[in-house]
Amino acid sequence: MSKPINLLEFENAARERLPAAVYDYYRGGAMDEVTLRENRAAYSRRALHYRVLAGVDRVDTTSRVLGIPVSMPVLVAPTAFHKLAHPDGELASLRAAARAGTVFTLSSLSNTSLEDAGRVAAEIGTRFWFQLYIYKDRGVTEALVRRAEAAGAAAIVLTVDAVVWGTREADTRNNFRLPDGLYVENLTVAGKQAFPPGPGSGLKAYVTEHFDPAIGWRDLDWLCSVTKLPVIVKGVCRPEDAKRCTEHGARAVVVSNHGGRQLDTSPATLDVLASVAAVLDSETELYVDGGIRRGTDVVKALALGARAVLLGRPVLWGLAAGGESGVTEVLELLRRELVDVLALCGCRTLAELDAAVLGS
Amino acid sequence: MSKPINLLEFENAARERLPAAVYDYYRGGAMDEVTLRENRAAYSRRALHYRVLAGVDRVDTTSRVLGIPVSMPVLVAPTAFHKLAHPDGELASLRAAARAGTVFTLSSLSNTSLEDAGRVAAEIGTRFWFQLYIYKDRGVTEALVRRAEAAGAAAIVLTVDAVVWGTREADTRNNFRLPDGLYVENLTVAGKQAFPPGPGSGLKAYVTEHFDPAIGWRDLDWLCSVTKLPVIVKGVCRPEDAKRCTEHGARAVVVSNHGGRQLDTSPATLDVLASVAAVLDSETELYVDGGIRRGTDVVKALALGARAVLLGRPVLWGLAAGGESGVTEVLELLRRELVDVLALCGCRTLAELDAAVLGS
Amino acid sequence: MSKPINLLEFENAARERLPAAVYDYYRGGAMDEVTLRENRAAYSRRALHYRVLAGVDRVDTTSRVLGIPVSMPVLVAPTAFHKLAHPDGELASLRAAARAGTVFTLSSLSNTSLEDAGRVAAEIGTRFWFQLYIYKDRGVTEALVRRAEAAGAAAIVLTVDAVVWGTREADTRNNFRLPDGLYVENLTVAGKQAFPPGPGSGLKAYVTEHFDPAIGWRDLDWLCSVTKLPVIVKGVCRPEDAKRCTEHGARAVVVSNHGGRQLDTSPATLDVLASVAAVLDSETELYVDGGIRRGTDVVKALALGARAVLLGRPVLWGLAAGGESGVTEVLELLRRELVDVLALCGCRTLAELDAAVLGS
Amino acid sequence: MSKPINLLEFENAARERLPAAVYDYYRGGAMDEVTLRENRAAYSRRALHYRVLAGVDRVDTTSRVLGIPVSMPVLVAPTAFHKLAHPDGELASLRAAARAGTVFTLSSLSNTSLEDAGRVAAEIGTRFWFQLYIYKDRGVTEALVRRAEAAGAAAIVLTVDAVVWGTREADTRNNFRLPDGLYVENLTVAGKQAFPPGPGSGLKAYVTEHFDPAIGWRDLDWLCSVTKLPVIVKGVCRPEDAKRCTEHGARAVVVSNHGGRQLDTSPATLDVLASVAAVLDSETELYVDGGIRRGTDVVKALALGARAVLLGRPVLWGLAAGGESGVTEVLELLRRELVDVLALCGCRTLAELDAAVLGS
Repeated sequence: MSKPINLLEFENAARERLPAAVYDYYRGGAMDEVTLRENRAAYSRRALHYRVLAGVDRVDTTSRVLGIPVSMPVLVAPTAFHKLAHPDGELASLRAAARAGTVFTLSSLSNTSLEDAGRVAAEIGTRFWFQLYIYKDRGVTEALVRRAEAAGAAAIVLTVDAVVWGTREADTRNNFRLPDGLYVENLTVAGKQAFPPGPGSGLKAYVTEHFDPAIGWRDLDWLCSVTKLPVIVKGVCRPEDAKRCTEHGARAVVVSNHGGRQLDTSPATLDVLASVAAVLDSETELYVDGGIRRGTDVVKALALGARAVLLGRPVLWGLAAGGESGVTEVLELLRRELVDVLALCGCRTLAELDAAVLGS
Repeated sequence: MSKPINLLEFENAARERLPAAVYDYYRGGAMDEVTLRENRAAYSRRALHYRVLAGVDRVDTTSRVLGIPVSMPVLVAPTAFHKLAHPDGELASLRAAARAGTVFTLSSLSNTSLEDAGRVAAEIGTRFWFQLYIYKDRGVTEALVRRAEAAGAAAIVLTVDAVVWGTREADTRNNFRLPDGLYVENLTVAGKQAFPPGPGSGLKAYVTEHFDPAIGWRDLDWLCSVTKLPVIVKGVCRPEDAKRCTEHGARAVVVSNHGGRQLDTSPATLDVLASVAAVLDSETELYVDGGIRRGTDVVKALALGARAVLLGRPVLWGLAAGGESGVTEVLELLRRELVDVLALCGCRTLAELDAAVLGS
Repeated sequence: MSKPINLLEFENAARERLPAAVYDYYRGGAMDEVTLRENRAAYSRRALHYRVLAGVDRVDTTSRVLGIPVSMPVLVAPTAFHKLAHPDGELASLRAAARAGTVFTLSSLSNTSLEDAGRVAAEIGTRFWFQLYIYKDRGVTEALVRRAEAAGAAAIVLTVDAVVWGTREADTRNNFRLPDGLYVENLTVAGKQAFPPGPGSGLKAYVTEHFDPAIGWRDLDWLCSVTKLPVIVKGVCRPEDAKRCTEHGARAVVVSNHGGRQLDTSPATLDVLASVAAVLDSETELYVDGGIRRGTDVVKALALGARAVLLGRPVLWGLAAGGESGVTEVLELLRRELVDVLALCGCRTLAELDAAVLGS
Repeated sequence: MSKPINLLEFENAARERLPAAVYDYYRGGAMDEVTLRENRAAYSRRALHYRVLAGVDRVDTTSRVLGIPVSMPVLVAPTAFHKLAHPDGELASLRAAARAGTVFTLSSLSNTSLEDAGRVAAEIGTRFWFQLYIYKDRGVTEALVRRAEAAGAAAIVLTVDAVVWGTREADTRNNFRLPDGLYVENLTVAGKQAFPPGPGSGLKAYVTEHFDPAIGWRDLDWLCSVTKLPVIVKGVCRPEDAKRCTEHGARAVVVSNHGGRQLDTSPATLDVLASVAAVLDSETELYVDGGIRRGTDVVKALALGARAVLLGRPVLWGLAAGGESGVTEVLELLRRELVDVLALCGCRTLAELDAAVLGS
């Protein structure tokens, strides 16, 4: 196969290299994958009404997220188990994100410990965020926060759309588990964790055992009270929930349906983005993920109110296809597309994007 | 084939085991099967706008239907001829429904007599409903009501959308008939019934001969007058008809198009559910059937006003695939999905479901 | 192949028997066949909101068209060249229509002369209509009217949507012509007509030579002035045109796009039917054709304001599949479906059909 | 393969004759080709509500564009590199356009020099337009304008939707380049131009090096100031941009998205045409391109406010299939369809077309 020239082709390249069960795990969505498809289709349904003769002498894609300067409004979403894609794992993705001038988010379900990620981030002088679930054991939870702080994480991304684990049927059929020698490095309930043996998805069994399904607003209060780090709430689809996040201390909200992996037939993120943006004040940052594969998608998300997008699966496809340089190429491809699209839309800066570019 | 892990896969498992004509009979819809497809598609068109951080410490799916406590708002719809699927027939389905803590509805077109069903229901201490057509001979009809009462049925489900039998073309082509040794056990016009020989669907010929095509509101009055059992009217699609059912004595209404088997191009049940719910008072219970295969579907039906859903074909697929334990697995699978979906939607109880979860 | 059990299957049966160029001629539409597909799709898009418990003791499908009693609101549309389908040609179709108790329309492009059709109609005591184009030579035109009157035609159906012949590309590719021995029997410009030799569609060449492309309202005036027969204008899609037809003497209007064979991307007839019905007074009868294959379709057309539908291609499929008895079976199949659909909709008579059955 | 009988079939005929990379270059759109498909689909979505009995004795398709009489409202769009399709290149297309009585637009990316085109146009007494990009080097740009004037071009078509070159992925994969012996004849930065060697699309590399990405309204002012020729701005999708074009000196505007080759997911041209027409005064002419393949398409574009359409790819398919006579046949085919469609719509002249024919 020839060199991938867009993010969609990176998925093909990755599929050729990955064991089927790993590819299925990364690719899959919940149940009938309606939301997985809709996330992507929502971008195709929106048209870009470009402006001409706008005198765009140069395009500036820089932005800031929670005060961190980024070279473009594309961040690396938290995704689990990067060593399934490539032996260099999360550190390769972190390095590629740094090279691209953007923020990497370390999943709590990583094959790389917070401490290792923090050490490398410090070496190369980059910032990263840490994604967190709330465990039944709040001591475990708080310990993770402390470790994230110590490792130099710049924010905590609290995932709230996974109170039970999504029904990803491929994982059930594949009895999805980490292979020997790979662990959930951050989870030290009793040393690093492997998944319980048995039928069905080992990950789902693990999550069911340890994650707290009953998390509520007071847990967000608690998290904000135990750390000075800004808290970003990820997994919101309703305006009233987004508003409430800010009232309980969140500094940013991610409109996300977990890449279609949790509640099937939840709405495409792009379709609810504007209504969430409408209720947030200018102090609260808004991000979105799900289905972003093209520079046009980034522009549409920003035009509907997002400050940045989070890129998930394509990072994994890049990692599988070429390790750190694969991730770098994914991020640079998307940047090049974004620059071209902004120029074609007649926009010099991200600030010039608004709903008019969508024809409304 | 591996073990089915959702209701859709149970259909595949059943198809492998069933004679083609039986599979066709269970699966098929009227004419071009527009309604059959629409029933299912209507669920995919609706999105679930989930709530987060709702503090759902446990999910309670219990409900009551006409005063009967059920473990979940999923009842077993009346479907004909269970012994075509499995030698244990309706008794297996009844036992599985009881084990799942829900109500089984015995079709008047069953291969098991009311008396046998009643005996087993009494043994295991469960309730069941009896589905009724109105026969040209009201004596035959009333005799069935009396037998249902004597057998301990808790309600009569009067089917009203079958004044003529739907044009199910596969049955016509297959000359669909019961095989030797299977009968319509409840119909004792002159002993238990086999279908008349001849070309085309034997069932259609039978129905045309015996069922009364001219049933009207006074027949509903009459039925309500001859029994103390609550009467549920099944097969309604218009609000004004639903309203009138209550005025003529019905205690509950089922929005149903007979699983797309009667009038092709009748609307998807989910699409008319809300308008029917809008005209019913709180005394009248509302159920819906048609196209339900996922926990998300159950939630959508309840959010639009149904108190419970009736599950038809998937019960038959479970029965064909594994007898009583197959039906049990179908019901438990759907229950597990329902529990997960409610948790992901941020709902502790069914009462918390309303149209907001559909984004309206 | 087994016996066709619906009108769609009759097309398959006909295709097996017909030369490809004849099948193409009957089946085809103009250009990209958008309208051909839409005519049919429009019926699938409308749902039938049936009524229950309506006490339909019997269904009466009888009606009258321009004073002629018909057994059902399904008439035989004018279609050309029935001897391409079967040696018995138009007389077989006429006899089948009579047997079915409905009106046959003889196309001016028939392989049977008006006089032969008239003789047989008189023998069996049935009425028929005659379809007319206006020729450049008004003498030819008037002569046809006189022959129609003499032959006993009960009405003239003036086709107005064919001022130029549609681009039916299959006919162009097939160099469509009548085979040796078949003629346009009614056209006696100089004896009965064969088509001019040459490349492309011979029919199109013929039409271009003889038909008047410039027909206008005064031609309708003229036609109404030269005959006492009621004039039906066929091929209307706009309300204002339909209204004007009545002002210029038409007794009835057919909403038709010539079965999608004339102007591609003209609207589906069902989609414009209600707006045409809205402007007509009760004196003017309204019919519709295009895409009708099911009893449900007939009900939808009547619910939107048509008094009757005209059935075109399915008559030809029946004729090809089985001669007169094939046409009879097509008409009886559609009648049986219509009766069933009316019963399922809760309608005793056609007069009970209105827009409510479409949910509006 | 048999002789093409419509414009769509000409594409098939061309594909058989062209090297794959050339076919890909002509056919392709940007990125996922959403806009490429939508341009065409937008025509299928609109219905033609034809008028009958309109007395159309003859159809007149003549018009004028910027004062030039044309035999029909179909002009030849600028497209690059005609010698890739046929050795006779742009001169064949020019001659065919002249024979058809319409305007040919010479692309600045032609394989034929302005001077050669001008000489032939003068010989056969026809008018042509010249398409222009603005180069970083305004001296180069102005020199092209002077050469166009000297060659007798009747207008300058300024393309404004290509400030960066679209991502046409087939060209990237194919390392699209002109073969040895073919050049961009008009571009004499240092003699006629070949494309830089290297990976990816040579054309994109070339454009990036030479075209000015920062063009703005003052560049339109400048262009209008340096030439007396009327300036037509091509590549507009927003009403406010179209309005502004006229304020900065443009005499006409082309609603165009570069045939879906520039910004993917930009709206179908037909879908934005009416809103652009609404803001233009009667002094400014409006044209449209993209997806036009049928006479019905031309009528729809005119009904929505276009004065004429520009035909791009089909001209190339005709050229590839048959040189000058292939282009002639493409133009004559479309004219014949247009004449038929106008007659069927009941229109004698283009002036009679308005939104009513679209049912609004």
